[in-house]
Order: sequence, then C-alpha cells, then structure tokens
Amino acid sequence: MSPFAGRKCLVTGGLGFIGSNLAHALVQAGASVTIVDALIRTHGGDHYNIADIAEAVHVNLSDLRDEATLRHLVRGQEFVFHLAGQVSHGDSMRDPELDLGTNCVSTINLVEACRHEAKDAVLVYASTRQVYGIAKRLPVDEDHPTVPIDVNGINKLAAEYYHLLYHRTYDLRSVVLRLTNTYGPRQQIRNTAQGFIGIFLYRALKGLPIDVFGTGEQRRDFHHVDDVVAAMMQAAVTQACYGRVLNLGGTKPWSLNDVLGILQQHCRFEFRHVPFPADRKIIDIGDYVGDWSRFHELTGWRPRTTLPEGLAQTIAFFRQHAEHYLR
Amino acid sequence: MSPFAGRKCLVTGGLGFIGSNLAHALVQAGASVTIVDALIRTHGGDHYNIADIAEAVHVNLSDLRDEATLRHLVRGQEFVFHLAGQVSHGDSMRDPELDLGTNCVSTINLVEACRHEAKDAVLVYASTRQVYGIAKRLPVDEDHPTVPIDVNGINKLAAEYYHLLYHRTYDLRSVVLRLTNTYGPRQQIRNTAQGFIGIFLYRALKGLPIDVFGTGEQRRDFHHVDDVVAAMMQAAVTQACYGRVLNLGGTKPWSLNDVLGILQQHCRFEFRHVPFPADRKIIDIGDYVGDWSRFHELTGWRPRTTLPEGLAQTIAFFRQHAEHYLR
Repeated sequence: MSPFAGRKCLVTGGLGFIGSNLAHALVQAGASVTIVDALIRTHGGDHYNIADIAEAVHVNLSDLRDEATLRHLVRGQEFVFHLAGQVSHGDSMRDPELDLGTNCVSTINLVEACRHEAKDAVLVYASTRQVYGIAKRLPVDEDHPTVPIDVNGINKLAAEYYHLLYHRTYDLRSVVLRLTNTYGPRQQIRNTAQGFIGIFLYRALKGLPIDVFGTGEQRRDFHHVDDVVAAMMQAAVTQACYGRVLNLGGTKPWSLNDVLGILQQHCRFEFRHVPFPADRKIIDIGDYVGDWSRFHELTGWRPRTTLPEGLAQTIAFFRQHAEHYLR
Repeated sequence: MSPFAGRKCLVTGGLGFIGSNLAHALVQAGASVTIVDALIRTHGGDHYNIADIAEAVHVNLSDLRDEATLRHLVRGQEFVFHLAGQVSHGDSMRDPELDLGTNCVSTINLVEACRHEAKDAVLVYASTRQVYGIAKRLPVDEDHPTVPIDVNGINKLAAEYYHLLYHRTYDLRSVVLRLTNTYGPRQQIRNTAQGFIGIFLYRALKGLPIDVFGTGEQRRDFHHVDDVVAAMMQAAVTQACYGRVLNLGGTKPWSLNDVLGILQQHCRFEFRHVPFPADRKIIDIGDYVGDWSRFHELTGWRPRTTLPEGLAQTIAFFRQHAEHYLR
C-alpha cells in the first residue's frame, strides 16, 4: 500500500508539465489531490494535461501571489508539492519582475501559509540546477558554488533559501530538489521558451529543420519526468531529506548531437549547427552533469529511464495526442 | 579636486542613516546630489538627517518598487548609490513580503532602469554580512559560503546577484559591498528593530537599563559610518571593483560587553545579561569578524575610526541633536 493512500496532497502548478505527471502518480497511489494553478500564459498549465484524471482531482485556479486564498488552500494538506513558477531562463531576462513574483513572492506566501495553516505538512520544492551557473567541475554536487547567470537562477535560489529557512526557524518539513533537464509526456513542447529538449521534440515530430546552437557537443544530463515524479514522492516520505537541498540527475550525460541522433531514429528531420545568438550565449551554462549520489544514499532513488527509452516513449505519447500538443 | 566634483549622483535611501551621511560627503565633494527615498515607516528615512544640506541636494520622494518613476530618476546619473531597503532582520521575519518588495523588487527595478536609462553609470550596492549566516570560520572572507538565516539575508543576497548578473550580462558597472555593524551620527537609534548598537546607544544616552542577550561575549566588528561612506565612494571610482563582491569591516572585533564598557565611560546606565528570546536566538549569527583585505588591496581603503573614538563622536552628535533623535 502506498504511503500516499488516502493522504491529502496539494500540487502547485499541477496543470503544468511536471505537476500534472505528479498528479497522475498521486491519484494512482490513492491520494486525495488538489491542484492549484494560475494558468499564466506561457507557464505551461493546461487542463488537457489532467483530462483523464479530471474526475479524481480537485482543481483550484488561483495565483500563489494571492496570499489570502493560498492560506485557505493549504489548510489540512499533508503533502505540498511546489512546482508552480516561471521556468524559462530567457523569459526571466525579458521580464525579471514577473519571474520574481511567480518564483519568490509566491514561495514566501506558500511557506508562510504552511507555517500558519499546515505546520505539519511536508513541502517538496522543485528547484533547478540553474542555480549553480557555469559548472566549475563535473559532476556537480550540492556543495558546488551557486553563481546563477540568469534572473531565473537567482530567484529560484532565493526560493530554495526560504524553504530551508522555514525548516530551520519553524521546523517546516521542507525538501529542495534540484532538477536538471526534464522531458516527457505533457511537456509544453510548443513553447520555444521552455528549453531546447522541448523545441527539439516539437520540431522533430513536425519534421521541421532544427538549428543547434554551437557545436552541439555540449553535454547535459536528462531525466524523464517519471523519474522526477518518483524522486519527489520519495523525498516527501523520507525524513532524512527534510531541511536538505538535493540534486537529481539522469542515467548518464548526452551531447545535444546524441539527442538529435536518437530523435532521428524515430522522426525524419534535418538539423544544422549555427552560432549562438548573443542573448542565448550569455545565459548558456555549457556542459552540465549532476551528482545525485547524496539523494540516492538517503532514499535509494535512482533514475530508471534511459534517454533512448524515454524519448521513444515520449514520442509515442505526443503522436497519440498530436491533435492537442502538436497543433 | 574630488573625482565627484560636478558629477551627478543618485542616492537611494538618501534620507536614511548611511544614505544621509553619504549625501553629506558627496555634497562636500562638490557632487550634484539627488536623493530618492520612500520614507517607509521604520526604515529610517528622516528629513532632519539632511536638514543642514537641504539647499544643496534635490530630494525626490518615491518608492523604488514604482518602476516608471525610477526610470526617469536614473536618467543622466553618473553614480548611483543604492542604500534603500529594509535592513531589520527581525522585521524581515515578521513581514517577509515587505522585505522582498523593498529589497528585491526595488533592486530589479533599479538595475533595469540603469541598464536602459544610465548604462554608463556606476552602481554601488550596500549589502550585508548577514548573507553569510553563521560564520564557519573567522575572519570571514568573500569565499565563505552564503547560508542566510533570516529573510533579510536571503533577499539581500538575491539583490547582490542581480547586480552581478547585470554586470556580467549588460556590462553594468556595479559593485557590491558587504557591510557589517554600522554606527554613527543620524542612525535611527529610537527604532529597536535596527540592531543592538542603536538600542545600546539610545538607552545609554537616556540612562535606561540595558538587557544584553546571552553572555555578552559574542564578538562583532563595527565600522563607523564615515568609514563606510569613504568605502562606497572609493569603490565607485575604482574600476577593478566593478563586478565584484567585497567585504568591509572594522579596525578590530569587540565583544558586546566591550561596547557597553566603552559606553559607560560616557553615559551612566546599568546593564544585565538575560537569556536570548527564542525569536532572536534563531536568527542570531554569533561571532562575526569580516576580512576586508580584498577591498583594501583594490582600493587602499581601511577603516580609520576605532570604536572608542567613533562612539565618543557619535555620543557627542546625539547629545547635540538630542531634541530630535532622543525624543
């Protein structure tokens, strides 16, 4: 029997990519799931993402920047998964104040709400490896310096600190997970501001040519959304994780050219290498590989899905739901 | 002839403690000074602080959270000294969203305004040693990990990162200085949320008994506001400082009991040691001594005022202006 059976779970950003996948897994585990989402344009929220579990979850449309409603929503919750927020690095540079509002104001409101209305809840925050900036050494462990090179990285780092502070000060049972490149079903692949893996998937599925910035030899690690969801649920029920910042990561690093090669096994498209546009180069982090051994030691978690398997499954999903996601 | 003679300088928070002292020094140096201040209750802004230079400066009352007016204010400025913000650690825990607004929203607006309207301006930011949290080693240099233990420390750290990011991304000539305990004339000593040195000064001058939290043996370094002002002006005209984070500090560390002993040479009052209140203990950083050698190497700056000299001068100032500051 799942530790989430019959438990009250709140998922912020639950209509988005990772949030909706998590909602599916929690429903599967027998949890009582409430989704809160602001449906901010470009952030990825989409009712279609939960169409097949719509009867099993409660959806509340509201913005976490609105403190008053949030206090009501967290009351009685046992697990709060915090996935709402702006995630585009480029968009954060174009509208830094929106990024601050949706990542920091919302997070302050959430930890305050939990402190006052759900002090025994477990709070799991989806942060990002972007807080490290350019890796000084690989793989990057949690002690690596944090020198964010875009507004989003700065604001996500501040949001992490709020979680840790409320753990230290008010015994809030919070966990911060640093995600790397996530891909999988329900990703908002139409939106070109949501990272290259989505862009690659969309254009490959549509048979459109792909421009790769630089040599394409830059390496990243990728984790399938199912592995991320499993990690978040594992973190939530592992007391040793509370008050900690922990990396997630993939099975092994791949270059962008590798990714394109895998996609070409499934889709017919062409790609070429082009110079970085200046506004992308300045916020590009170069190679990144995360060290997730600390999280593994605490929970036993490890990524299960290899990139070739995961991309094949993701492509099958998007082909099945092409009418919605590939419009 | 001063490098500031005839130069256009903007001082945010210029009606406050450090800002008003800086405005005095800039006027003295022949600069054309504009002060912007929101006069947020408890933040320390006070027209009396600049009464004697009121004819020589332009005062604009506005809030940096208002982006539109700020863009107009920075236009044509050559030096921007950013001192506006919430500085009370305790208040930041009681109202985290106000702290976020006055430290982060305002700073995003300021760096954006400079980028668009004053791209050649030099921007000097007054940050705080609070970003380090509890010192793991003494003295603390700039490579010490940043683990803030209150909301103010988190938000000031984010504000630092915005300055550095805009330097890296847009070549904004910004400098971040990390201040430690500052004291001196025009300090808002009536407000008990503004740190222990102000509380000590106020109560000593009024002959009121003082409660010292803990043993009183916790050590801090203190810098007189004149030394801080000199450092900010030096940083502004030293190209090697741009894009850097640099500590300031005092001539040597002193314990709280030392401070009280010095004050008792000038004022008649009693003090006793009492246990820390829980809400203070949790955000107390313990011993702190800053290593300011990096800033010294770049600029030649060093603190000139010893604590006994500085406190004697400060006490004389407040006695002279008792009618206003000791009400």
